Amino acid sequence: MSGLRTLSISLALALSCATALAARAADSPRPAYAWTTTEAFDVSRVPAYAGRHDAVYARIDADLEAHVAHLQRWVRQRSISAQDDGIDAMAAMVADDLRALGFDEVRQVETPGHPGVLGYYDAGAARTLVVYMMYDVQPVEDNWRIDDPFAGSLVENEHGTVLMARGATNQKGPQRAFLNALDAMIKTTGTLPVNLYVVAEGEEELGSPNVGRIFEPWLDRLRQADGAFFPMNIQRPDGSASLNLGVKGIVYFELESKGGAWGGPARSEVHGSVKSLVDSPTLRLVQAIASMTTPDGNTITIPGYYAPVTPPTVEQQRLVNALAAGADDAALQRSLGVSRWIDGLTGREAIVRDLFEPTLNVDGLWSGYTGAGMKTILPHVATAKMDSRLPPGLEPEDAYRMIRAHLDAKGFDDVVIRPLSGYPAASTSVDTPLVQAMLGVLNKYGAPARVSPWLGGSAPFYQFTRTLGLPFVFGGLGYGTGAHGPDEFMLIHPARGVKAAGLADIEKSYVDILHALSEVR
Amino acid sequence: MSGLRTLSISLALALSCATALAARAADSPRPAYAWTTTEAFDVSRVPAYAGRHDAVYARIDADLEAHVAHLQRWVRQRSISAQDDGIDAMAAMVADDLRALGFDEVRQVETPGHPGVLGYYDAGAARTLVVYMMYDVQPVEDNWRIDDPFAGSLVENEHGTVLMARGATNQKGPQRAFLNALDAMIKTTGTLPVNLYVVAEGEEELGSPNVGRIFEPWLDRLRQADGAFFPMNIQRPDGSASLNLGVKGIVYFELESKGGAWGGPARSEVHGSVKSLVDSPTLRLVQAIASMTTPDGNTITIPGYYAPVTPPTVEQQRLVNALAAGADDAALQRSLGVSRWIDGLTGREAIVRDLFEPTLNVDGLWSGYTGAGMKTILPHVATAKMDSRLPPGLEPEDAYRMIRAHLDAKGFDDVVIRPLSGYPAASTSVDTPLVQAMLGVLNKYGAPARVSPWLGGSAPFYQFTRTLGLPFVFGGLGYGTGAHGPDEFMLIHPARGVKAAGLADIEKSYVDILHALSEVR
Repeated sequence: MSGLRTLSISLALALSCATALAARAADSPRPAYAWTTTEAFDVSRVPAYAGRHDAVYARIDADLEAHVAHLQRWVRQRSISAQDDGIDAMAAMVADDLRALGFDEVRQVETPGHPGVLGYYDAGAARTLVVYMMYDVQPVEDNWRIDDPFAGSLVENEHGTVLMARGATNQKGPQRAFLNALDAMIKTTGTLPVNLYVVAEGEEELGSPNVGRIFEPWLDRLRQADGAFFPMNIQRPDGSASLNLGVKGIVYFELESKGGAWGGPARSEVHGSVKSLVDSPTLRLVQAIASMTTPDGNTITIPGYYAPVTPPTVEQQRLVNALAAGADDAALQRSLGVSRWIDGLTGREAIVRDLFEPTLNVDGLWSGYTGAGMKTILPHVATAKMDSRLPPGLEPEDAYRMIRAHLDAKGFDDVVIRPLSGYPAASTSVDTPLVQAMLGVLNKYGAPARVSPWLGGSAPFYQFTRTLGLPFVFGGLGYGTGAHGPDEFMLIHPARGVKAAGLADIEKSYVDILHALSEVR
Repeated sequence: MSGLRTLSISLALALSCATALAARAADSPRPAYAWTTTEAFDVSRVPAYAGRHDAVYARIDADLEAHVAHLQRWVRQRSISAQDDGIDAMAAMVADDLRALGFDEVRQVETPGHPGVLGYYDAGAARTLVVYMMYDVQPVEDNWRIDDPFAGSLVENEHGTVLMARGATNQKGPQRAFLNALDAMIKTTGTLPVNLYVVAEGEEELGSPNVGRIFEPWLDRLRQADGAFFPMNIQRPDGSASLNLGVKGIVYFELESKGGAWGGPARSEVHGSVKSLVDSPTLRLVQAIASMTTPDGNTITIPGYYAPVTPPTVEQQRLVNALAAGADDAALQRSLGVSRWIDGLTGREAIVRDLFEPTLNVDGLWSGYTGAGMKTILPHVATAKMDSRLPPGLEPEDAYRMIRAHLDAKGFDDVVIRPLSGYPAASTSVDTPLVQAMLGVLNKYGAPARVSPWLGGSAPFYQFTRTLGLPFVFGGLGYGTGAHGPDEFMLIHPARGVKAAGLADIEKSYVDILHALSEVR
């Protein structure tokens, strides 16, 4: 989820500016979206959640030390999906914790990959929420700031007391905090304000290839829920929050050119000097990739690629107008080590580009000799890893079809596309009761959210919005950073002056969210 | 020298065919060379060398066992230049052997790299020859056919008894055979028919970066010589020979795009989804490379790049006409694992393309994530290794200047060119006495040569033709193969039916070459 978090900051910081896109539209496949409203979404008009659940809050405060220990227990259990390290034990820990909370049904679901966990808590309530969890984490590198990224250490830093560990914020911390909130509610009131499904997977860091399989046993039941929720720390130290209501889709593929009947060396590399007579698979791949963008690499020239994107709705325009009013492009550029955006874009133009246009990116590229000095060869194979981010409307199968058709039309029919992933975008309307409940709770805790219709990053959340047909919200109070990095942490006890919530308030906000959802009329 | 040998076969096999180039000329920067003669060079019209040096030949036959032992002694001495393994000992062995032969002056020349050896044998003769030697060899891989590539083993194979070892044919075998021939002459007649300089370097396999430094102490003396000679096995098993009268030049460089003031991530990779707003150095490099060729990767679009090439002279046309008459494109394509030449070329058209046009080749290319599976990053740097082979007329500094100007004109002024090498072509006229002497000797031994004005491969032989201003010939009887490979060998005693010369005839032919040169009027 680190990509999601980075991009969420991206949008939150974007500058206000409204240079027209129209000037470039004439000679570019890039669409010029009509902008029909200057009105901006105003999060302060969402009423702060007014409910009080003091007995539960008190219980959270009383049990806080034990609650911290639960987070520590989770991060101490290794669960590196890429290395199959601790996976089964962590899946069992999730299932055991759900049983301990009083979930009526808990089952492990086998998949072709790592197992999932399904749980159901029947509160006899009118409303039902699906809670998505990922129990896996990224591998750890040698450069960790503390001796043991799995020690569950509490560390003091400029933000206060933090839990520094792999998985602290991505995603064990907020998830176990959510279970702590359930525990406090159940212990205090004997039940929950909504019925709860938990769907936990152990392959999020692998791209969630099997999350759909985990749904299967209960697919019809899950579809009857009122919404889906993914606990996440979305505050920054200043207390502000970024709520993203969706994600882009993606196609991720390898593109490969290899010598064969069309020409080029088929068996192995040949001497570089025979380029005079022998076609180069490397140059062929380079030309194939080059044919897919304008010379600046920034406009996709695949015919029809921009056309299916759904233009900004009035609701989305209002969200973008609000984001543009509070944006700071320069700060985000600094954080990325980038001196400028493409075409010198700023403000609303940059936000629209980020949200409403597909990308085409080369993630990796290799061919031939890559060592020191000189080796004169004509390589027989060249490969690229590429991805394209898909806004709502542009479906992955259509993206693949257009890329293939383009390569064929340009004479690159021998260039192979090897799909590694492909899924569509997901987005949830800001007007849904679940989102309104979330915004109201954030307002209650003084964490007004910058709301984006989605972010530029990708996650297979279409499984919730499309397969299950549910509004899907990922968020919550709390601050954490360093996901996938050597200093991942989640803030537990904020230092004086730090406005982000500590663990107790995070848990209280989860209590409020469930109640807010249960109170929707 | 393995590239040279491969290409020499290339030319020897090329098919006869003369489809006009003119049709494509109109819309291509590719020149259409006027072909003004259909006459073909006829090597059989060069008189076979008629001299007989029976006493020397008898001495060679009598000493043959000791001569083989000298070759074995040379290959047993490791001299891997890339790994500085045995270099000093091998340089000393060369110098000691020259002294033992009676060279008057022998000195080691220090360079910034491995040392060179200079030797002079004053025969009081009218003519003087410079003999170039390389005493270094390529590294050895684990997959060698015999236990020890430095054992100097005599092995039986389908060609007869061969010396199988690293350096056997590239280039210790033919070089020490040449010294054996000198030894037989000196022991028989007390002197040599020509004065001899030996210039030996230990960095040929590194691209000869310092061979010019080795000349320096004797530069004026070397320039007074009548020609330069590099002993080499140029026969094939059927006895035929390929004599190449030169080499193309080369520029070898790295091309790199890195994020910076122009855009893109300057510090490190960023998340792939920000391609929406961040320029991609990888796509920029791809576009820069793509801009240098037509979409098929086979015609260079750098303005002016073909223009400086010297068009085929009548002499060169006659050589090409002869090559075309005896060529076999399909056989060479099979040997390279290639199904067709560029544009379906064959015969003379293919030979002209190979000899008279510069190439542009990508030797290697890398950027970003190249491991298994998916990693979604926007890399901050992308690098290519590229080379361009330069026919006579196209100078390396002009090639670099045009590449830079082209990139600048296309807006890629931030794309860095890092030159790793650059030197011009070298060629010697077939009419020079040294070449005529060589051809006459080859005819004497029933090894009529297919003669090419140069080959598509590169070597810094301009040091002889330009720095020293000498005709330069590389060749001689004998068969060897596997240079740089795990089964390098030189044929010592041919099996029945194999027409390539054995060691005794190789040495006798060297005797004849020196005499033939001394007899030129």
